Amino acid sequence: MAISEEKINVEGMSCGHCTAAVEKALAALAGVEKAVANLGEKNVTVTYDPGKTTKDDLVNAIEEEGYEVK
Amino acid sequence: MAISEEKINVEGMSCGHCTAAVEKALAALAGVEKAVANLGEKNVTVTYDPGKTTKDDLVNAIEEEGYEVK
Repeated sequence: MAISEEKINVEGMSCGHCTAAVEKALAALAGVEKAVANLGEKNVTVTYDPGKTTKDDLVNAIEEEGYEVK
Repeated sequence: MAISEEKINVEGMSCGHCTAAVEKALAALAGVEKAVANLGEKNVTVTYDPGKTTKDDLVNAIEEEGYEVK
């Protein structure tokens, strides 16, 4: 199964605690290899196995932390 | 020993993670009974025993979390 990289726009991250919370929530999902949030660019880049996790799962994890996906 | 209450102005808290980090750092000090940070008012109110912790200790704990005391 090929690994996907997805850049997701996230609104509401205001500090390093926020980026860490988003990264941690994504990394906890099955199939997510890496999640790197960028505060200035308001996004998170996720490397994951689409056979184990869908983009919807990624979006849900971000929203459950209290941030908005644009 | 009388208990003191001190309201300290803090710059740089941008979200609930920040207020939680400041509260936790203060609560970890000996003699601190309560620490409640207010994001909108940019301050934290600390109830503590001045015989166990000084105001300098409170300020240091806040600064070590990466915030500025004004």
